[in-house]
Amino acid sequence: MFLGDLATPALVADWATLEHNLRTMAAHLPGSRLRPHVKAHKCTALAKLQRDFGHHAFCCATIREAEGLAVAGLGEDLLLANEVIDHERLARLRHWPVVVAVDSELTIAAAARAGIVGVLIDVNVGLPRCGCPPEQAGRLADRARQAGLEVAGVMGYEGHAVGIEDRALRQEVCEEAMQRLLVAYGEVGGTIVSAGGTGTFDLNRWATEIQAGSYVLMDSQYAKLGLPFHQALFVWATVVSLGEGYAVADCGLKALGMDHGNPTIDEAQVLFCSDEHVTFVPGRPVRVGEKIKVWPAHVDPTVAYHERLWIAEGERIVEAWPIDLRGW
Amino acid sequence: MFLGDLATPALVADWATLEHNLRTMAAHLPGSRLRPHVKAHKCTALAKLQRDFGHHAFCCATIREAEGLAVAGLGEDLLLANEVIDHERLARLRHWPVVVAVDSELTIAAAARAGIVGVLIDVNVGLPRCGCPPEQAGRLADRARQAGLEVAGVMGYEGHAVGIEDRALRQEVCEEAMQRLLVAYGEVGGTIVSAGGTGTFDLNRWATEIQAGSYVLMDSQYAKLGLPFHQALFVWATVVSLGEGYAVADCGLKALGMDHGNPTIDEAQVLFCSDEHVTFVPGRPVRVGEKIKVWPAHVDPTVAYHERLWIAEGERIVEAWPIDLRGW
Repeated sequence: MFLGDLATPALVADWATLEHNLRTMAAHLPGSRLRPHVKAHKCTALAKLQRDFGHHAFCCATIREAEGLAVAGLGEDLLLANEVIDHERLARLRHWPVVVAVDSELTIAAAARAGIVGVLIDVNVGLPRCGCPPEQAGRLADRARQAGLEVAGVMGYEGHAVGIEDRALRQEVCEEAMQRLLVAYGEVGGTIVSAGGTGTFDLNRWATEIQAGSYVLMDSQYAKLGLPFHQALFVWATVVSLGEGYAVADCGLKALGMDHGNPTIDEAQVLFCSDEHVTFVPGRPVRVGEKIKVWPAHVDPTVAYHERLWIAEGERIVEAWPIDLRGW
Repeated sequence: MFLGDLATPALVADWATLEHNLRTMAAHLPGSRLRPHVKAHKCTALAKLQRDFGHHAFCCATIREAEGLAVAGLGEDLLLANEVIDHERLARLRHWPVVVAVDSELTIAAAARAGIVGVLIDVNVGLPRCGCPPEQAGRLADRARQAGLEVAGVMGYEGHAVGIEDRALRQEVCEEAMQRLLVAYGEVGGTIVSAGGTGTFDLNRWATEIQAGSYVLMDSQYAKLGLPFHQALFVWATVVSLGEGYAVADCGLKALGMDHGNPTIDEAQVLFCSDEHVTFVPGRPVRVGEKIKVWPAHVDPTVAYHERLWIAEGERIVEAWPIDLRGW
């Protein structure tokens, strides 16, 4: 089967690029120095490949991701890096060695009631999202221990740093964030300082493990940062119509995460996306029926729309992996 | 089962509002005057409800939507309002009375080769997307007839008009677009002039049928237009964390179509969305564990992320409908 045989739109990853990204990351952050975040690809087959490259611990954003990894035999060391209130659903994870992020009395209570073994204290390091203030981390760790939970350490995601294009500034913001995290760590104890993302994978020298996910597939937003990872993921689409000065392909809002803006197309300018279409100005002649690559701006919400990830070696399709960790 | 029992994030429609929207539209555009566009909800259970309100003809954007409707017993009169080149997949629809949009020699050839019975000539009426120039419509109709296809009429979507907030201007742009479509219709013949959307449902007096879809569920983008339809659709989410001056709920980029911007939350200002979170400034005290309604900005790509649509009568959950027409 070849690329040209795929029904469009189809989510495709280029094998050579994928392997380059995996190899490059494993060289920089071998083994447990990386805790790959599966939210970026939601695919157990790809997680198995990450394990083949030496990474045995995984990071998840949802209960379904964690449960799916465990059921697939990848549950050796899981971190659910998210706050959960619903102890009944959280209890689905109690038979596996899962560590869960907590940042409040209620999330600690939910973890304890769910029968979860361990927690990390999630610390706000500058991104206005989950995480307690650093000065409350010690108190929460005490409460967690009182509730019978093992406190494995801290986590704090410098999400406000990872996308900064200027490398020096990115490093500066990352360091400042990690200083906050280390203050909390001093009060909390444990062995884990979990942080980082693809944008800070080689800048964050303070975390014991980096939670990068996008590096495997990459997107046009991260591509601007000059990282050693390349865009492996594209949506394969068919040009279905030609207008005066523009062309239309069958890949739209339901095949692409749009929060980072329009996708890109080689030698073309994208005008806008509709539900099932992308309208673009081609920089070279295109014809109706021609297949093109549409590069997503944001990998995570793009993958979440698709049932399957096709793996291409050049023009040849060599694998079809279910995106089996979708939903919640 | 009650709203409070749903695992979050969950896609929910309020029954009373849904029924109001269906009733209001059926009163304005009874029976075949409306061809409901299922791309907005991708749900055969909801399409059956539209049929109960008198609409027997449906509009689709994908082969899967058309095939799914037909298999569900809703294939009496289907329009695939989209260009398809892949004749092998299109042939899946050849046993049902499906009319397919065409705008080029190649789309006509694909329809003929697929064994499709009828086509509509898709005309560009001002939106830079699919559709031939009006002056080419007659020639394409001739080609379609030569290829053995029945030409049922024309379609032309005034997508550049439907979202204009000023009603008079919306009407003006709609009329201009429909003049282009009627010119083409004069050359093409047939019985169908298919056009329109929720924003022009009562302004478009030229089309024989209106292809509205969003009116059933609605979103915050369409809500600005002062239409007689109300927002029925929300994502039910749990507040999982509180920061200094902000709160975080468990509904993010993978639960929301983001091309029209951030969702809205009553009595709050939304700051930003992450993969699994929305960060917002509440205008009243909220607590961790509290459930809230998150109103999507764009209904179609929001629904496409979810497996199930829950129907709520007040606080009571009365139905759970599979979003069974997702994918392609």
